[in-house]
Amino acid sequence: MRIGILGTGTVGATLGTKLVELGHDVKMGSRSATNEKAEDWAKKTSSTKASNGTFADAAAFGEIMFNCTLGQISLEALKMAGAQNLRGKVLIDVSNPLDFSKGMPPTLTVSNTDSVGEQIQRAFPDVKVVKSLNTISAPIMINPKLLQGDTDIFVCGNDSGAKAQVQRLLEQFGWKNIIDLDDISAARGTEMWLALWVRLMMKFQNPMFNIHIQKVN
Amino acid sequence: MRIGILGTGTVGATLGTKLVELGHDVKMGSRSATNEKAEDWAKKTSSTKASNGTFADAAAFGEIMFNCTLGQISLEALKMAGAQNLRGKVLIDVSNPLDFSKGMPPTLTVSNTDSVGEQIQRAFPDVKVVKSLNTISAPIMINPKLLQGDTDIFVCGNDSGAKAQVQRLLEQFGWKNIIDLDDISAARGTEMWLALWVRLMMKFQNPMFNIHIQKVN
Repeated sequence: MRIGILGTGTVGATLGTKLVELGHDVKMGSRSATNEKAEDWAKKTSSTKASNGTFADAAAFGEIMFNCTLGQISLEALKMAGAQNLRGKVLIDVSNPLDFSKGMPPTLTVSNTDSVGEQIQRAFPDVKVVKSLNTISAPIMINPKLLQGDTDIFVCGNDSGAKAQVQRLLEQFGWKNIIDLDDISAARGTEMWLALWVRLMMKFQNPMFNIHIQKVN
Repeated sequence: MRIGILGTGTVGATLGTKLVELGHDVKMGSRSATNEKAEDWAKKTSSTKASNGTFADAAAFGEIMFNCTLGQISLEALKMAGAQNLRGKVLIDVSNPLDFSKGMPPTLTVSNTDSVGEQIQRAFPDVKVVKSLNTISAPIMINPKLLQGDTDIFVCGNDSGAKAQVQRLLEQFGWKNIIDLDDISAARGTEMWLALWVRLMMKFQNPMFNIHIQKVN
């Protein structure tokens, strides 16, 4: 598949490299066609399957898109990507609206009655937004087997077909327990989980963890 | 120990009954000394160790207090309990600021930059507030062994001695994995977890679950 990655941070680079390893063609997009981090990523990946360009280039290229930008600038990045380039496509929103401007722990720039996932879906009604992978650190996103025991990942979104496509990608990453939380408004839940995630990360001094839901016997 | 329970809902009744079974003396408090639910609870528990009264009666009685009122009325209930009755005592805040006024899923009346736990600690600086048990449904609070496999509970608060006391009570309920998230501001994390908890509850059509944190091998 041709996949567009929006964002050049650790999450975008980690997902991009894994997707190339899995045989997909990946274009990493950013504000500028010559972004240093994106060029470095494409070079390091050293595969004809890895390339970089603008947000619009990545969006035009991808059949499926990953939003790996910071939550508070995601709408702006997606506007630069262009509604016409995104139309009808699946967008996997991995972003979190973390605001570190007042130090640790961060707060969220949107929460409780709204979420980045919903903001994107409202701004781009033709896009099939699926929120996923935002509940964990990048190394675990692409390799849940790093963790001891069963561990769970969430998807939510308004389009069942899009969620099924995302589920297949998650399975390629090694995810087994995929919990469908229904429509995109459940993104409030997975984004607000970050408030607890951050405190656990501070406690463990380590971002390498995830939850497993235990049920009754 | 003498324990005061503030609130007459399922959480208060479940904790109260369990605490009586464990041999503690429990007084359930509410707005009125003749609250029907509190009188029913005391009658059903059929032990000289179970009694009921006003919020102030319960607060004067208890060496340790459980706040089992709804999060949005907790400050009001604690004012009725009386600062002089609460002074220097441990208050285990089990509340969540869930607002169901617009239907399911609920939103939170306070979140992100504040929490009920912090509100209580600010309003009653002499009280040793420990946030705990608010991340799960009542039957699991007092019996984590209902769940399959390991499962985790959180405590946070500004007073280490108070947290150690709460930890001993949690152990009496059967909790093994008790995670100390540091100061009371971590209550934001455990209260905001409710946004995800509610979506999981809607998905499973069952509130009988909890998380376990999986770490790296």
